[in-house]
This record gives sequence, C-alpha cells and structure tokens, in this order.
Amino acid sequence: MTWQNYLTENKARFLDELLDFLRIPSISSLPENAADVRKAGEWVAKRMRTAGIENVAIMETDGHPVVYGDWLHAPGKPTVMIYGHFDVQPVDPIELWESPPFEPTIRDGRVYARGSNDDKGNMLTPILATEALLTSVGALPLNVKYFFEGQEEIGSPTLPPFVEANQAKFTCDMVISSDGGQYSDTQPELTVGLRGLAALQIDVRGPNVDVHSGMYGGAIANPIHALVQILDSMRADDGKILVEGFYDRVQPLSAEDRAQIAAVPHDDEAFKARVDVNDIYGEPGFSTLERIWARPTLELNGIWGGFQGIGTKTVLPSAAHAKITCRLVADQKPEEIAQLLTTHIYKHTPPGVEVTVQVGNNKADPYLMPVDHPGNLAARDVHLELYEEEPLYVRSGGSIPFCSLFQKILGVYTVNFAFALNDEKQHSPNEFFRLHNFERGQKAYCMLLERLGKA
Amino acid sequence: MTWQNYLTENKARFLDELLDFLRIPSISSLPENAADVRKAGEWVAKRMRTAGIENVAIMETDGHPVVYGDWLHAPGKPTVMIYGHFDVQPVDPIELWESPPFEPTIRDGRVYARGSNDDKGNMLTPILATEALLTSVGALPLNVKYFFEGQEEIGSPTLPPFVEANQAKFTCDMVISSDGGQYSDTQPELTVGLRGLAALQIDVRGPNVDVHSGMYGGAIANPIHALVQILDSMRADDGKILVEGFYDRVQPLSAEDRAQIAAVPHDDEAFKARVDVNDIYGEPGFSTLERIWARPTLELNGIWGGFQGIGTKTVLPSAAHAKITCRLVADQKPEEIAQLLTTHIYKHTPPGVEVTVQVGNNKADPYLMPVDHPGNLAARDVHLELYEEEPLYVRSGGSIPFCSLFQKILGVYTVNFAFALNDEKQHSPNEFFRLHNFERGQKAYCMLLERLGKA
Repeated sequence: MTWQNYLTENKARFLDELLDFLRIPSISSLPENAADVRKAGEWVAKRMRTAGIENVAIMETDGHPVVYGDWLHAPGKPTVMIYGHFDVQPVDPIELWESPPFEPTIRDGRVYARGSNDDKGNMLTPILATEALLTSVGALPLNVKYFFEGQEEIGSPTLPPFVEANQAKFTCDMVISSDGGQYSDTQPELTVGLRGLAALQIDVRGPNVDVHSGMYGGAIANPIHALVQILDSMRADDGKILVEGFYDRVQPLSAEDRAQIAAVPHDDEAFKARVDVNDIYGEPGFSTLERIWARPTLELNGIWGGFQGIGTKTVLPSAAHAKITCRLVADQKPEEIAQLLTTHIYKHTPPGVEVTVQVGNNKADPYLMPVDHPGNLAARDVHLELYEEEPLYVRSGGSIPFCSLFQKILGVYTVNFAFALNDEKQHSPNEFFRLHNFERGQKAYCMLLERLGKA
Repeated sequence: MTWQNYLTENKARFLDELLDFLRIPSISSLPENAADVRKAGEWVAKRMRTAGIENVAIMETDGHPVVYGDWLHAPGKPTVMIYGHFDVQPVDPIELWESPPFEPTIRDGRVYARGSNDDKGNMLTPILATEALLTSVGALPLNVKYFFEGQEEIGSPTLPPFVEANQAKFTCDMVISSDGGQYSDTQPELTVGLRGLAALQIDVRGPNVDVHSGMYGGAIANPIHALVQILDSMRADDGKILVEGFYDRVQPLSAEDRAQIAAVPHDDEAFKARVDVNDIYGEPGFSTLERIWARPTLELNGIWGGFQGIGTKTVLPSAAHAKITCRLVADQKPEEIAQLLTTHIYKHTPPGVEVTVQVGNNKADPYLMPVDHPGNLAARDVHLELYEEEPLYVRSGGSIPFCSLFQKILGVYTVNFAFALNDEKQHSPNEFFRLHNFERGQKAYCMLLERLGKA
C-alpha cells in the first residue's frame, strides 16, 4: 500500500478525529480553560502514539504544557522538528457564531469550529502524514521531532526558558511550522520574514493636580503639549522615524528582495477600501508591501491625558501618557530599539515636566530566512507539484515569537508549511477550514518529508 | 446719625442676616437646587426693599432669575450699576468640610459656609451700605442700579440675551462688581484685565476600526500620529503659538503696563512649589505674570485615542481626539481665533486621515479697562484711605463673562470692588470670609458711592 492510498482509505476516520480534537475548548488565554488546554495536549499525545511516533511525552513548562515526540531511525539523514499548537483563541463574540464554536459542523466542504484553521486542522496533518508513511513505507525518510505547544495564542510567554532548558532534546537541522497558510487556493507561498516587536509607554507629569488653565496656562509646561512635542520629534511628517540609530541595523532590500515582493499581487485601492481610508501613507521610496514587510515602524497605539468628556473643561492637566510599539525588521534588536527610543525621549523632554519611560515585556526579534534555505527549496518543489505554480515569497508585518525563538536558541530557521487560507476567519467568529486543504496538507507533508529525506 | 454709626450699631443684625442668607443652598449647577437659587433671589429682593432700594423685581431669564432694583433720585449725577451673584458652587467633596456648608459657623472671626466669600458675603455689603446711607443721610450721593444674578457659577449662560433685551433698563455710566477680592488684608488691588476664552475639539479618523499594527502599520496613516503632528504644528517648542494671525489683535504691553505688572509681588519659586513643577515654562520675553495676564495661550486640555489599558495592545487605532482652549487677551475675538485655529488644523492635516473640528459653545471675550477709568480713580482713593496703600493694578488669567458682557452690550466698564481674599477657599471645602472684611466692605461701599457722587 502506498501512503497515497492510506490517506485516501482513512479519509473518513481522519475527519472524525479532527472533529473530536475540535470539540476540546482549549482556550489558552482563559484560566478556566487551562484543563482543556491540557486535555487537548493529551489528545495530541495519544494521537501521536497511534501514528507510531515514539518517546511521546507531555512536558511541563511554567505555563501550558508542550507535547513532544520523535522518530529518529534514519541515521545519516537530517533531523527536522515539526511545530504546531493545540491551543485556540477565545470565542467572543459568541452570538455571531452560526454554529457553536466547539461543536464542529461541516457545511459546503468546510469544517466550522474555533481552531479548525488555527491551528488544529493544520497541526494534525503532519501527524497523519507520519502515520501514512510509517504504515505504508514502514519508516520515515528522515529523522523527525514533533513539538506542539499550548500557549501560542497568548504569545508563548513561558516557551523561551523551556526551549533553552531542553536545548539538546530539540536540536535539529530545521523547524517546519504547521501554523500558517497559503496565499490562495491556487497560489502557494513561502514566508521568509516576520517583523519583531518592541513596546514602551511614556508617562509625562506636570503639575501635581489638574490646574486652572487661566491661572497657570502659559506659565508652566502642559504635559500634553510636552508629550506631543516628544512624539512629534520621533517621526518626520513623511513617516520616516527620526530616532537616532533606529535604522542602523535594518537590512536594506536587495534588487532580488524587491522583485520577490513586487511579484506578490497587491492592490492599494482594495487595501484602502478594506479599512476605509482615503489614502495610503508611509515612508517614502517604498511600496505598501515593502513598508509592511521589510521596514520598521514606530506606531502610537494609544494616548491619553486630561479631560475626555463632553464639552469644555479648562484644565491644564497633571499628566499625559502614550503607548508605543515598534515593528522591527532584521537585524534590529528589541532591547536596543527600546533603549534608543528611551534615550531620544529623555533627550527631547522639554523643561518643566518629568518623563518616565516604561519598556514593555512584550517583545519579539524580527525574523528573516534565506529564500534558498534547503527547507524552502524542498517546500517549493512540493508546492510546484501540488499547485503547478511557483510559490510567492512573502513576509508578514506581524510577529510570530517561535520563529525567532528557535532561531535564537536552536540556531535553526523555521520553514512555514501550512494550508490555511486568510479568508477562513481565524481569531473571529465562524472560523473554518477547507476540508480539501486538510487533505492537501496530509499529502504535502508526506511529499515534503520524502523530498527532505533525499537531500 | 452718620452712616458710620449706623453700620456699627447694626453690626450684629447684619451678621445674623448674612448667616440667614448663607443657609440657602443656592447651587446653580444642580437642577435639584433650582428652587433654592430662586429662594436666594427672593431673599435678596426682600433685603433690598428693607434697605430702601426701589423698583425691586425678580426678573426672569431663560435660566436662574436676576434680581433688579434701583434708586434714581440724584438728577445730574452719574448712574452706577452694582453687580453681584447669589448662586454658589457645589459642595463636593462634602466629607472635607469641618462644619456643614449650609450651616454657617463662626470660628476665629471668620464665617465658614459655601458662598461666604463667593459671593454672598461680598454682595450683601453694597445693600447694607445703601441702607446705611439712606437711613443716615436720607439719600444716595448718585443714582444706583442693582443687578444680582443667580447663574455666575455656571458661566452666566442665559445672561447675554437677557441683558440685550433689557438694555435700556440697565443703562449706566459704569458697573461696580462686588464679586472678587483684594490682594491681601493689607494690600488693595484693582483688576483691569481678564482673559477671554475660545474652545474647540479636534477629531481625527483613520481606518474604520482599530487595525492590527503588524498588518497595517507603516502603510496607512495613524490617527494619533496625525493628531500629534497637527498639534505640534500649532506651537513652537518655546511656547510661541504658530497659528497664522493668532497674535494679530493682541495689544502689546506698554512700558507702563509692564511696570504695573512688575509692581505686583510674584515669586516664581513659590509658584512652582505650589503645583510641584521643576521649572516655569512659557513664551520667551515675558515674565510669569505677563504670560498669565497679558498673553494668549493655546492649551491642550485633553487628548485620547487607541489603547489606554495596562500592557501592550498592538493596534493602529481608528481615531484620536484632542480638546483645546485658548485664553485670549484684548483685542482677540473668540470666534475669529476659533476660525484661525480651524483653518490651521485643516491646512496641516496630513494625507490618509479625516479631520473634523468642533467649535465649543464655551467662549468669552477678553477684557481690558483703562487704569485711569473714573471708577478706578475713585476706588483708588477709597483704598488709599482704608488701607493706607496704593492699590496694585492686576489682571486675571481667567475669564469672567459679565465684565465683557456689560462692556459689549451696555458699553461700560466694570470696576472690581470686593473684599474677599484668595486664601478663603472659594470653590473648595471650608470656604470662609473674614468678618472684618464684611464690615470693611460695607464702609468701603459708602465711601465709594460718596466719592463717585462728588465727581
């Protein structure tokens, strides 16, 4: 029997198993669902054992557990570690769901449930592919480790010390992530870059209480004015960041990078319409996708101070505050960027106010992998065969902590290899996953492991 | 009997009457106290009749009533109109009062009650002075109109159309205000200037919802950044306002003005300590008192937008808002300043956001009267005799609507002639009034009316 036949013959059973998995409300952000997260981990461990994966264990972290397993009987062959997560997002607003989020429902060839797309449907595919290969061929074409976590949706806060402490166990030649998706149902993609994150808050204090703007206005500094002055000093009107050293470590875009990004379909009109803005806006000399994928930002996430009610209150307020996050690109470092911003802020603080900068815990390193990494080359071959299309080389403007985490601690890159699509409402009500991509993922993982085993 | 003897002999009765007046909780800002405001007006009307004032009437406005009366039997003599108000501020926080705000209590020669200083204690003095003059001399030395209102503490919102509609009735040569105070117990003052007010709100809209700062950050305008950019464009780092035309109508300070202001004791160290700031700050080339009294401001009273909670939220927010008030000086006009600001804001709006400017209803004209106005000259003589000190010529950084209102509609200036002191906690818990100033005020009004009658 071939693995192809095995997958076909077990199609109904695999779908039933996915539905079982989806019934577990493993919401990692809610303390009351912590036991469900663990239950999902136990479900995964059991399913891995059934597939023939060895040394399966639920490993404790300081938060939700990690499920590990391996199959290491291919001496001389490379070792890959497959990543995924079994925790899910909350379900609010629950009233917008057409069927209950933890009662998976099939409609029009799609399974509707929280986690169907992100990431249960995806993460099950490499396990099923493993079972197909072990059952039909009797062995995997290379050494495989499996690493499934339960805290991705809350930013994997306890993963860094855990991976660090178990570094030897997780040693591998590359990570393959089953969390993510493809460009469209007919167009494959490979993600080669993610932005990092640095966060801070500025607190400006003036008079010890809100004072009368008639009695003090014009003679003492106004904390909102001071904050505005500081914030405006950080950024040119055209969007360029003016903080000294901010761009120093930014990898410039090569002609090849720009060509790859330009190859990705993008329509500024549709982009504007999606969020109802009258114009695009950003750093001169870059396209919209370049701005989002390959350029760092300094974004004001929130600002507040003084009177916010209806009408007029003639106060000169006591304090003003702003929250800033920077999206970072390779090779910027969150700690260094936070330091550069802090230095800039103190240097630009006008007289008469006191400023405090709080650096946030929420940080992530940027991630950029070579387009021609062996994992990408293998994935490209699989995509070409499955889709009959060259993949697009994309980046993401967001941050995925585990990619830079594995790079930093294990020294390996992560190949993104998953089959969700962006219209499948991940993180929103009525999340769904197309069943033909559930099947395509199983097949794709068999092909990818075979391809990597031949290298 | 002289008016001096009359005042002395009736001292105990006058104090009892003041306590009676103070028991009425005439809080103009609270709808549930509207009947009390009217009751206070009726008390005033009755007391005016007792004093011998004629044509006493409670006149309706679209809000709290005005109490009017007159004594017009001095043909060939000038006519003055005495102003005061019988409404009071709210009493919160009530728990900080040492004795109940509407149970007047005498301690150490002071009467403690809401309104004792502002303005019931003060406004009663010209009525008592009138009684003393009419009873002893049998006539007033000039024609006097009396105008007591019940909505001063809420900004006299319905007074402008009321004064306009009754313009002929209120015709006079000058207004004398019994609302205000003196520099200290030994140092008299005359107020010659007040700042005006213009208010507006800026609303900046970007994307139609808060969007992901990773997916959109760097490629569409951030409303907070846009707001910061607009606000910072309005003001130089040194505090100078950069809005075109803003200073065009500002009366420059003459050498005499500056000398009069410099004669007023002021200590920047004490000023800083009072509100706990580490530095003074303001428009270059002006002293602190000049900045507060004679220069206009553009103050940010409030700002808000995006995420204001604990921690980090990586949003590019949908909207940002700011509230602005300008303190104005003669001859700036609130409507014109609001228009100049609006024009500036739209001109400096960056692409990618939509900005709306709302001009606030809260506005006041600035006020500046000649130092050598006949009313000021007469008041100076009285002060010299009572205090044996030349008065200081002061201004206020705040706004008092009725001064510019009477100037605008009746074409006359208002002489500030009242005897409260600034340490008497007006608008705060434990408001009090020094009884010797209650008596000094009665005497001073007799002297002032005599002095004005001789002119």
